[in-house]
Amino acid sequence: MDDGAPPPGKEAFKVTPWEVRGKIDYERLQELFGTSPLDEPVKARLRRLLGTPLHPLLERDIYLSHRDLPEVLDRYERGDPFFLYTGRGPSGEVHLAHLLPFELSRYLQQKLGVEFWVQVTDDEKFLFQGSLSLEETRRLGRENLLDLLALGFDPKKTHILFDTASIRSLYPLALKVAKRVTYSTAKAVFGFTPQNNIGSIFFTAIQSVPAFLPSARAGRPVPCLIPCGIDQDPHFRITRDVAEPLGYPKPALIHNRLLPGLSGEEKMSSSAERKDGVIFLNDPPEEVDRKLSRAFTGGRASVEEQRRLGANPEVCSVWALWRSRFAPDPKEFAEITRTCRSGELLCGECKRRLIPRVQQFLGEHARRRADVERWVDSAIVDGPPGGTA
Amino acid sequence: MDDGAPPPGKEAFKVTPWEVRGKIDYERLQELFGTSPLDEPVKARLRRLLGTPLHPLLERDIYLSHRDLPEVLDRYERGDPFFLYTGRGPSGEVHLAHLLPFELSRYLQQKLGVEFWVQVTDDEKFLFQGSLSLEETRRLGRENLLDLLALGFDPKKTHILFDTASIRSLYPLALKVAKRVTYSTAKAVFGFTPQNNIGSIFFTAIQSVPAFLPSARAGRPVPCLIPCGIDQDPHFRITRDVAEPLGYPKPALIHNRLLPGLSGEEKMSSSAERKDGVIFLNDPPEEVDRKLSRAFTGGRASVEEQRRLGANPEVCSVWALWRSRFAPDPKEFAEITRTCRSGELLCGECKRRLIPRVQQFLGEHARRRADVERWVDSAIVDGPPGGTA
Repeated sequence: MDDGAPPPGKEAFKVTPWEVRGKIDYERLQELFGTSPLDEPVKARLRRLLGTPLHPLLERDIYLSHRDLPEVLDRYERGDPFFLYTGRGPSGEVHLAHLLPFELSRYLQQKLGVEFWVQVTDDEKFLFQGSLSLEETRRLGRENLLDLLALGFDPKKTHILFDTASIRSLYPLALKVAKRVTYSTAKAVFGFTPQNNIGSIFFTAIQSVPAFLPSARAGRPVPCLIPCGIDQDPHFRITRDVAEPLGYPKPALIHNRLLPGLSGEEKMSSSAERKDGVIFLNDPPEEVDRKLSRAFTGGRASVEEQRRLGANPEVCSVWALWRSRFAPDPKEFAEITRTCRSGELLCGECKRRLIPRVQQFLGEHARRRADVERWVDSAIVDGPPGGTA
Repeated sequence: MDDGAPPPGKEAFKVTPWEVRGKIDYERLQELFGTSPLDEPVKARLRRLLGTPLHPLLERDIYLSHRDLPEVLDRYERGDPFFLYTGRGPSGEVHLAHLLPFELSRYLQQKLGVEFWVQVTDDEKFLFQGSLSLEETRRLGRENLLDLLALGFDPKKTHILFDTASIRSLYPLALKVAKRVTYSTAKAVFGFTPQNNIGSIFFTAIQSVPAFLPSARAGRPVPCLIPCGIDQDPHFRITRDVAEPLGYPKPALIHNRLLPGLSGEEKMSSSAERKDGVIFLNDPPEEVDRKLSRAFTGGRASVEEQRRLGANPEVCSVWALWRSRFAPDPKEFAEITRTCRSGELLCGECKRRLIPRVQQFLGEHARRRADVERWVDSAIVDGPPGGTA
């Protein structure tokens, strides 16, 4: 496994589906992974299809890389719509970073009317996290779904594959994938050791299935687009390798950079020891206040220095939140960025402006979540989880 | 993996779930595997419970080894009945050797009224046999079930786990097993190489589940007895190792020796190149005649020599058939054996007596098979296979 050993003069980093280490150089990561940049020509095509401006996630380079995106757009324009597939590994509560692929999916579904498939990998989180029971990952899976779908999806065009519940639909295709993936390949892609359990080794086959299931059901090739964090790309390299031998189209991917944690981590992640780096969707207002007030920024050592030299938004966890969701108006976002750089906007004031926006979003989100409760179970393929585990 | 490297003066042999090589020394195999002999004290207990004489499969040492059999008998006598679990890997048509664990199960169900669980591993055969499609193993699985259940089971006490169809019931428990089995362990037990596919590595978890499912459903420990060929024992060593950590009783096992092939093979198996070593349940009468007429025996080079020295039933594939099923009357079987050893019964005459018995059995079996068709699908947990694969 190429773990990002740096060329001379560059810092080392490592990005896998389960671990992010060091300072990520996203350009070098794309080279290592062999993905294509989401550059101006691709964005111009997206604007033609989706209108101007694009969603902030696209316009502001949070989605920064892809595989075969132009191909699915070509086919869409020829009248052959793709479906969206993304997933959630239910190892804890949903936080802001988890929303990125779901928010992009919501936007694309709303603009293009495409079908959306979401996979809940309660099996994966049970297999990979020693301390979690299957009962717990199932419970979390359903709770997480409510949070994620509350972003606003069309219930008639949303299909949920909840692994342990939908397994009768998943398993036959997973076997066909698994038969084409050797232990040797899985080891090279994921870095398994002999101490990995046999379920964790098989799991990638289950994660490949949603990319193929709509084609299998329709009896014709249905193109697939997967929005996901760039750290999840290794799973889908295997999916793409087996697609054509199985007679299905290779899924296209669109990758987001990782949302930084509030304590200065490269990836907002609740598996870190400190939970203060993370804003959960069910954080009460006072927690949002407390966490954001302490958040890591790109500010200077003193007010005087910051007024004189300006701050650095690119390393700031607060600016990353404005960028991703909380300053949808391009003018406002440009103004925040300009005054941050110039030293006019100090970090304390910036945080005081952001905190009520985040609190308001979470409050509205909780209300929309209750609506999803009404339809979520009927969207689960083969019915909701339950019964003997 | 200990492959039976022989002590000085002994022949080498190898017995795994997928391969039998060399001349099997069953005593040494039991030592290697660490199983207990099905000796006179155990048989005396069985006679007390089941009546005298025992089924020929028990009385004539075709079942020759066990793990923890006295424990399940103790519990049975204290009013805590076990259930039976055996399985079928549908890689082809059913032949006479496949009937052994099913015939013992039928007998025990009839005598004791116990529940019978049968697993059809259509997933296994797809994963392990390059040339078989999943559609084919599913089709064979249902066909094979008809053949096996036609031995005569109580439909009200027979439960079928058809892997790809019953996977919603199997998968949660399979995950719990898989989480406790490392690649390293699976490799040691089954001899996997890096070229094995990731499905084949996971599979043993699926094969463990039926031993635990009745306990999981009942919410209390239900003892399990597994009749199987001794070559299948490695699978259940893993099952037994994970049982107690998962809170389920260790399944007991009762092992049969392998039925020899008609061409002199140690194991009647249709995966051999020549199909003439095998009597399939759907062989027409003339095929039975042809195959048995050519069958390997323990006879001598000439009639004169055989009259003088007698023949050797222990190495004879025809005598193995009398022993297992076709001479249920103990007196008749004793007489065949005695006259074979003495040289009175020549191989040609012996075969001429056996052929109509086998033909008659297969004819009756075909009629009973049609009865099973009426109830088989309703016995499959979660319903029969079908739909998109």
